[in-house]
Amino acid sequence: MSARVLSSEMAGFEGKRVRVEGWVHRIRDLGGVRFLSVRDRSGLAQVVVPGEIDISGVGCECVIRVDGISRSEPRAPGGVEVLASRVDVVARAELPPLEVYKPLSVSRPRLDTLLDNRAVSLRIPEVLDIFRVQAEIVKCFRSYLDSQDFVEINTPKLVLAGAEGGAALFEVDYFEQTAYLAQSPQFYKQIMVGSGLERVYEVGHAYRAEKSETSRHITEFVSLDFEIGFIEDEQDLMQMLSEVIRYMFSEVRRVCAAELERMEVTLPQLTEIPQISYLEAETLLREKFGKSEGINGDLDTEGERLIGEWAAKEHGNEFVFVTGYAMEKRPVYALAHEEFPEYSRSFDLLYRGVEIVTGGQRIHDYGQLVVALRNAGLDPTDYRGYLAAFKYGMPPHGGMGMGLERLTKQMLGLSNIKEACLFPRDRYRLTP
Amino acid sequence: MSARVLSSEMAGFEGKRVRVEGWVHRIRDLGGVRFLSVRDRSGLAQVVVPGEIDISGVGCECVIRVDGISRSEPRAPGGVEVLASRVDVVARAELPPLEVYKPLSVSRPRLDTLLDNRAVSLRIPEVLDIFRVQAEIVKCFRSYLDSQDFVEINTPKLVLAGAEGGAALFEVDYFEQTAYLAQSPQFYKQIMVGSGLERVYEVGHAYRAEKSETSRHITEFVSLDFEIGFIEDEQDLMQMLSEVIRYMFSEVRRVCAAELERMEVTLPQLTEIPQISYLEAETLLREKFGKSEGINGDLDTEGERLIGEWAAKEHGNEFVFVTGYAMEKRPVYALAHEEFPEYSRSFDLLYRGVEIVTGGQRIHDYGQLVVALRNAGLDPTDYRGYLAAFKYGMPPHGGMGMGLERLTKQMLGLSNIKEACLFPRDRYRLTP
Repeated sequence: MSARVLSSEMAGFEGKRVRVEGWVHRIRDLGGVRFLSVRDRSGLAQVVVPGEIDISGVGCECVIRVDGISRSEPRAPGGVEVLASRVDVVARAELPPLEVYKPLSVSRPRLDTLLDNRAVSLRIPEVLDIFRVQAEIVKCFRSYLDSQDFVEINTPKLVLAGAEGGAALFEVDYFEQTAYLAQSPQFYKQIMVGSGLERVYEVGHAYRAEKSETSRHITEFVSLDFEIGFIEDEQDLMQMLSEVIRYMFSEVRRVCAAELERMEVTLPQLTEIPQISYLEAETLLREKFGKSEGINGDLDTEGERLIGEWAAKEHGNEFVFVTGYAMEKRPVYALAHEEFPEYSRSFDLLYRGVEIVTGGQRIHDYGQLVVALRNAGLDPTDYRGYLAAFKYGMPPHGGMGMGLERLTKQMLGLSNIKEACLFPRDRYRLTP
Repeated sequence: MSARVLSSEMAGFEGKRVRVEGWVHRIRDLGGVRFLSVRDRSGLAQVVVPGEIDISGVGCECVIRVDGISRSEPRAPGGVEVLASRVDVVARAELPPLEVYKPLSVSRPRLDTLLDNRAVSLRIPEVLDIFRVQAEIVKCFRSYLDSQDFVEINTPKLVLAGAEGGAALFEVDYFEQTAYLAQSPQFYKQIMVGSGLERVYEVGHAYRAEKSETSRHITEFVSLDFEIGFIEDEQDLMQMLSEVIRYMFSEVRRVCAAELERMEVTLPQLTEIPQISYLEAETLLREKFGKSEGINGDLDTEGERLIGEWAAKEHGNEFVFVTGYAMEKRPVYALAHEEFPEYSRSFDLLYRGVEIVTGGQRIHDYGQLVVALRNAGLDPTDYRGYLAAFKYGMPPHGGMGMGLERLTKQMLGLSNIKEACLFPRDRYRLTP
């Protein structure tokens, strides 16, 4: 299956018969001799086609099979090229709607053009690189947590009620009932802590029926979640999250060095992530930045951006934890601080001034949770299956959720979250 | 966070101060001295509570914290017990609806009782073991394919049309449109082969709005999928799948040895998986088993069971590939055999007489796929985003999909697929 064309792998094959299979990336005709750039999953190879071979039917994006001899050529990628003795067309291609071989900085396509023509735009090496990095991010998330004795779980996305209240849910016609698409695995990961697994994580889709069209919202996203039992307080969670992020950065930097270089992205060596409490942030925003609106127990988009700037300047860190948001701004299951009951044991993690993680310690006392549900106007009998985890003994616990696409966007400096999703969904986009 | 109670880990701590946190699994009162069995993610620990400590408020499933001294005790799990000097109740528990400490063979709960009381039934060690094994199955799937240069992808579950035709789709109210929940990532994984990744896999939810209530159907399941470009034919796919399964079995046997022992499950050392063509199977069923109904280009449930029996007897293998099903029984994108165009280059993998995998080589020629869609009564313009992958050059390719819960059920000899799903969904069940 598939001869690798990566030139470095051919280096040992100089003067040997080689077979190359892939997509025609680019064709250059230098008066009789034709140069084909052939692309496969490992990179590009240069193929020289002598005049006697007819390649009139070969165009960009055709899939071809080349038999030939490898030879040293300093100007070819990796220093090796293939002198073709035979070129077969495996699959023809019509003239593509995007020039796959051109860097985005040259072709400058609109985002909608990239998304409308996804089967072609994903062939642009810079675009595909995003998803190689994304796969590595997910792998790091899992493997670090595996090393810390977590168990991966898969929880339902078809649910009867939402974890964050009734707003922004997609309705599903479910036989004789109405189901909803889960906004988060919140309730289920808590039940799984209570099941005795204690430490669980999930990588799965989550849904938000948000009408807003912004550069950081999609309606279907991949949520990286973990939940941990027997914690002291939210600092244990922030500690675990910091370790995950640190491992992610160091591994992505190492494994995806080539992709990062092509994208001109430098990932910093992560140091300890600074913290600021919501109340400190509020004071800072008021006194230092003259900002008083949009900070009512929570930070708005501008507030997050300014706190991000402050952390970069004061602490030299692109990350900053904001802790202790107001209870009224956090979900019903959030735990209040014992001494300052209007504030929660919750946190957000901001990365380059954008919230990428929301987390916190949860209520673990059954009676307290029933009261919290009632105070929020919810009927505890609707949450029977969830409450059972608490009724029969639940340890102190908490966790966090992180949007994969948003993290990818921030890490790679993309301008829109949709660039960090293979096939994004928004209010109007359901295809491809 | 959470002292580990596993006795083997306490072995080095004899006569030392230890702290144990977990759920009260069982309480035995032997006239003044009380023995608590305490459960956490690592197993059980025996705690001896002297008469002077009041534990009248401690019941089964309470979360407690025990401070004490470890000491050698041959009759305790792992040969070590804890003599408590202090017992704190971290979280109270009401009397649970299921006896968590009793083996299922003794308590014999109905499946509905287990599922209705999921937050409690998952605490039964035998039940939780299923999901530790399941997590390992998924890990093996990923890590083997990672080692073979695959890239993990995440594709949308909100789609405009189903991959397998219009039947059995859940409708979603999507702003001004109607969306459907994807039955499989089929179209998207094909597009990703064409994108140049060549080798992709996905672990994600898939949906079937099937009204049928059987022991092997759920409406939301986890699908393990891979798709590979530049194959010769379907044998390449069966080869890769065989390697994945072999790795899975050997790793699950090694990593989950304790769970398998508790469940009394023995996993065989896998040898090469035998193959039988659909036509051979048809002849065999007719001539050897006297079965002629329910085999019209495909095998019914009984046919699969009999072929499974045949493979076990003739080849000593619990697995068997059935190849070359009739084209009319396979999806629209299935590739026909060149010499026998009524039969496809497809296969199923049966495990203990049940189909756990469906796979095959796909059509890669654009014109041929357009004709196939039209012949199936579908409008190619509805599949524009999918067809684009073929219009602009798609190599020969194919793949497979495997239901995680069904595989888990077969591997562990469970009687119903719902036992292999944390929170299963069927026609009537949407909670917990």
